[in-house]
Amino acid sequence: MNAPCPLCQPDRETVLWQDRLARVVLVDDPAYPGFCRVIWQAHVAEMTDLAPAQRRHLMGLVWGVETVLRQTLQPAKINLASLGNQVPHLHWHVIPRFADDATFPDAIWAARRRPGVTRGVDVAALREALQMVLPAA
Amino acid sequence: MNAPCPLCQPDRETVLWQDRLARVVLVDDPAYPGFCRVIWQAHVAEMTDLAPAQRRHLMGLVWGVETVLRQTLQPAKINLASLGNQVPHLHWHVIPRFADDATFPDAIWAARRRPGVTRGVDVAALREALQMVLPAA
Repeated sequence: MNAPCPLCQPDRETVLWQDRLARVVLVDDPAYPGFCRVIWQAHVAEMTDLAPAQRRHLMGLVWGVETVLRQTLQPAKINLASLGNQVPHLHWHVIPRFADDATFPDAIWAARRRPGVTRGVDVAALREALQMVLPAA
Repeated sequence: MNAPCPLCQPDRETVLWQDRLARVVLVDDPAYPGFCRVIWQAHVAEMTDLAPAQRRHLMGLVWGVETVLRQTLQPAKINLASLGNQVPHLHWHVIPRFADDATFPDAIWAARRRPGVTRGVDVAALREALQMVLPAA
């Protein structure tokens, strides 16, 4: 018996925005403020399993989230990743990176280099900015 | 004085495909056979620094590389990432992952879990398959 997919049946999520095809959630990690995930609603593993129009919609959301995070947090760099080795349900990590965060300039999955500065994030402001920028399907 | 950008002035690259906007190179790492990078030719840091048509072209190449790698290597999963913390020149990692590779199911930037099975890759076949699939600008 397989465990239920945690992205099909989320336990608890801070949803910032959604439409019928995808949702944007805030990852609750003070070490990486503004870290968002863009999650395809249907249980699909790979980008090339989507139709081209679906891929364009999903990536449009990723670019919109990147735009909002750059404007509101002014990070040193944005990191984008779709891995899914542990949860093969299509989702994009959109991660604002700062020179003083725990792992910079490595990937956030690498060993920590320092305790890392934590920052707060204004969830209501983020939600409002996404609402202005993201194109609903 | 800044060091020259290693993606503007590459030391040595196995180029599999290129057009005037981007190139696909094979990453020479036997632990991750078929690991490709799709590199934007111009020195630009973020996806949202590109015009929408440029983003579509670049992502079309990423989907094409993913398609070819899935067909030729049948990996357990494809990992996609654009990080650029160390080299802020836009490039996508397209990484075929296997259950017996050194870090699966973690990201390849995490600590190794095992020595990892190495596999060969047929560079000429990969080049030919990319030539069939990728749309030149």
